[in-house]
Amino acid sequence: MYSEAISWTPAGAVRLLDQTCLPAETRFVDIGTIDDMVEAIQSLRVRGAPLIGVAATMGLAAAAVRAADDGSLAAGKAAALQWLADACDTMADARPTAVNLRWAVERVRRVTDERIRASGDDQAGATLAKTLREEAQRVWDEDARMCQAIGEAGASRFPKGARVLTHCNTGMLATGGIGTALGVIRVAHEQGRVSEVYACEARPLRQGSRLTAWELGRTNIPCTVMVDSAAATVMGQGRVDVVVLGADRIAANGDVANKIGTQNLAVIAKSFGIPFYVAAPRSTFDLRAPDGAAIPIEQRAADEIETADGVSVYNPAFDVTPAALVTGIVTDAGVIEAPYPESIDRLFRGVRDHAGEPGPGQRRRP
Amino acid sequence: MYSEAISWTPAGAVRLLDQTCLPAETRFVDIGTIDDMVEAIQSLRVRGAPLIGVAATMGLAAAAVRAADDGSLAAGKAAALQWLADACDTMADARPTAVNLRWAVERVRRVTDERIRASGDDQAGATLAKTLREEAQRVWDEDARMCQAIGEAGASRFPKGARVLTHCNTGMLATGGIGTALGVIRVAHEQGRVSEVYACEARPLRQGSRLTAWELGRTNIPCTVMVDSAAATVMGQGRVDVVVLGADRIAANGDVANKIGTQNLAVIAKSFGIPFYVAAPRSTFDLRAPDGAAIPIEQRAADEIETADGVSVYNPAFDVTPAALVTGIVTDAGVIEAPYPESIDRLFRGVRDHAGEPGPGQRRRP
Repeated sequence: MYSEAISWTPAGAVRLLDQTCLPAETRFVDIGTIDDMVEAIQSLRVRGAPLIGVAATMGLAAAAVRAADDGSLAAGKAAALQWLADACDTMADARPTAVNLRWAVERVRRVTDERIRASGDDQAGATLAKTLREEAQRVWDEDARMCQAIGEAGASRFPKGARVLTHCNTGMLATGGIGTALGVIRVAHEQGRVSEVYACEARPLRQGSRLTAWELGRTNIPCTVMVDSAAATVMGQGRVDVVVLGADRIAANGDVANKIGTQNLAVIAKSFGIPFYVAAPRSTFDLRAPDGAAIPIEQRAADEIETADGVSVYNPAFDVTPAALVTGIVTDAGVIEAPYPESIDRLFRGVRDHAGEPGPGQRRRP
Repeated sequence: MYSEAISWTPAGAVRLLDQTCLPAETRFVDIGTIDDMVEAIQSLRVRGAPLIGVAATMGLAAAAVRAADDGSLAAGKAAALQWLADACDTMADARPTAVNLRWAVERVRRVTDERIRASGDDQAGATLAKTLREEAQRVWDEDARMCQAIGEAGASRFPKGARVLTHCNTGMLATGGIGTALGVIRVAHEQGRVSEVYACEARPLRQGSRLTAWELGRTNIPCTVMVDSAAATVMGQGRVDVVVLGADRIAANGDVANKIGTQNLAVIAKSFGIPFYVAAPRSTFDLRAPDGAAIPIEQRAADEIETADGVSVYNPAFDVTPAALVTGIVTDAGVIEAPYPESIDRLFRGVRDHAGEPGPGQRRRP
């Protein structure tokens, strides 16, 4: 267990900190079925691209344990393989934009499928549950290590006592470890490189004012919350030395899909000459997407933005920031800079990912 | 009566549309005392700098009528003058930053004071009530005419079928007429020059999603609401032809103080080459402020932005947009453009304001 955000229960269920209740209430939910985990992901009880990947694979493991125990999983390889295929298909579709979800699910599916096929017919159910549990734990452990590597790589870019602006939530509530952009802030703060963090509210769901503020408070990092609209004011007043935030998907040319408002901040930071960093593990890159236009953007429900009856609502969850506005991308393998098609290519050339598995970055390669 | 926002009751009270209840409920409150109008202004039942000025003067008139009727106003000039002085002092202080409020109150105070002094001792109470009512109606009529003039001046700048982005609320809920920036949109829509309006939410108090959306819905102008953070997305996608919004105060060099988020939108519009217009009557100019740095910015209560305990909140109500980002300022005397110190100077040179009264713009002149 790396944080309060997610853990195993003694019975093998997944215990999630219900993020919809923060910061008012610290409430946990125990999840033991595919449907319950899909609901938790879709309703944002658990959120943040890396943590969704961790939660999805842990959810598969928890559901397999329960299915084996309660007899709903029939004996034999065929039944185990069918259960795995159905469960993974359902889980992978829970949210469309976060590439980590599909990637993590496909990874544990492949390994588990192989092990079941190699097992004896009477061992199929046990192999399913055991493999999913082991692989989910690996996904989680690796994510925590990636966060630490990202934090250390990014912190070196901060000047002493930097005033940092961030957006949405990219911390232990969004990952399996200390976070991506908030991981950078956390490591940099330990090194005396952060004096203050401006956290944008992140409407409509307020992950900044609810979650990032809560996390920074718990780690004693000075935090000031403001509405998203105040970004130009604080940057224009010279109160921000560096911007760092996360990514949900990064295209092959360096275009970044991230929480709605990221592009606003990138344009404004550029206009004031403030360095703008994106922090994300290599698993966030999708080299099959040549540029941002190829990244699907999730449209969320209109009722997230309360307004008058009969009025249209445009509510994209994410936007795409052109690579030209990004000073650097902080990855678990170091910081890369423009020109991005080349630096991204070098990042993945002949490299197996952190886990020795082909990452999304390699999929387009023959 | 120019709109639903404000009107006289048959008995001479002021009927306000309670804006705190919108858009869920269309509720009216009748106001007949100074204290009730001060409460309505402070609690934002009535808001928008021009409408606050109109409401304050109408409130003075309604309170004078009631005081004369119920006998609480003693006979004689001295009592009438004292009542006027006390009532105007109280009303002018209702909100410290609304420049129109103080300006409108001082204007009706001066005229009414003169008329009482010129009246017979037995006519003082009747003169007080009659003059306040007449002058309040003048303030209201003139504001409505100013809105119409702004609307016509600005609409000519829109191409056919323009897709327009606006911020906060600048319509009949903010003025005595059709509005400033929303007045431009309304006139342009009548001329076939508006096909859609993107209304930013305007956090923290959501005057865009609550009030502008409600107004546009009632006037059958197609409206799409979005979070403030989606501005770069819609502008970057080529979905916006022009930005138009209001102003709370404009400095002598053309710097514009307006609702927080205006500067964000100006920077983003500039980066995409989208025309950015500010619409405001000449009474919004403050030539005593050489630039935006001289404009005091109201900091509002931290609890407007809900966050975790113990976290700082930065909550300025307004920001300052540099004149260099403003394509044009739409006034009741036409549209002016850069270079602003010169075009603003021409706007006021040797000119009395719309009412023949010295406006704030003239005050620094000898």
